[in-house]
Amino acid sequence: MSDSQAYPLAKALEARILEQIPLLSAMQVRLEHYDGESLRLSAPLPPNINDKGTAFGGSLATLVTITGWCFTTLLADQVGANEVVVADSQMNYLKPVTAELNSYCILEADSRTSFLNLLESRGKASLQLEVNIAEPEPALRFQGRYVALLRNAT
Amino acid sequence: MSDSQAYPLAKALEARILEQIPLLSAMQVRLEHYDGESLRLSAPLPPNINDKGTAFGGSLATLVTITGWCFTTLLADQVGANEVVVADSQMNYLKPVTAELNSYCILEADSRTSFLNLLESRGKASLQLEVNIAEPEPALRFQGRYVALLRNAT
Repeated sequence: MSDSQAYPLAKALEARILEQIPLLSAMQVRLEHYDGESLRLSAPLPPNINDKGTAFGGSLATLVTITGWCFTTLLADQVGANEVVVADSQMNYLKPVTAELNSYCILEADSRTSFLNLLESRGKASLQLEVNIAEPEPALRFQGRYVALLRNAT
Repeated sequence: MSDSQAYPLAKALEARILEQIPLLSAMQVRLEHYDGESLRLSAPLPPNINDKGTAFGGSLATLVTITGWCFTTLLADQVGANEVVVADSQMNYLKPVTAELNSYCILEADSRTSFLNLLESRGKASLQLEVNIAEPEPALRFQGRYVALLRNAT
């Protein structure tokens, strides 16, 4: 998929989740970048602030989790998957976030290909992703496992 | 601390975080129970729904993280701590949540005592907590580590 195709598909997914998931709308989550290989989401600080004036841990946890979910969903949609869920995750909170929240996910071509091949051949596949929030030093490191199911898979 | 003292302190903390953390207000998080040994938070499904009509993973992640934070904060406040932060966490999503979100945290007396003793003697202590969401079968298992700092500790 070319970059020019990838971004409009990602913006359509952004519109769908902002409409259907009220918490993401409250957080004012925004898709900043998607090119088929990497994805970046952002959210402004004010709706995501905590009692200390920095980014709320729940907002950070939500942002990284949905970043991995969006990435897996956009990838899996290439072969017609219709359900992607998060299975498990680990987070390390490294330092406070004091400005806009930015989360970034990237995956090597080999890992993308093996995930899509497994999804097509077995109807189900899981993807291990790393998502980071940096400002610009690392502030939160997230590792999550997502499971995708192919449409009509039994 | 007696049960009759614990609950009003917890409701005061609930009021403070709902006022200062807009995401918790958007989620309509509510403190249901605190007795010094266990804590339960809830949130209604509608503001926390996802595109599949079940509880959004970000809402679940936020609810368990803040449950552990509230528990650690209420405990640490007994010896005058003024800062509690989440350091790291692990989550296992076991099944979808289809009704009100309920998270529950309990800690044995021995673990509470050793945490408070360490906090008083060193000015800093970490607490490992397990928080669960069940409806009533286990839906999400969370393990988190929180760090508390004593007021005026160097």
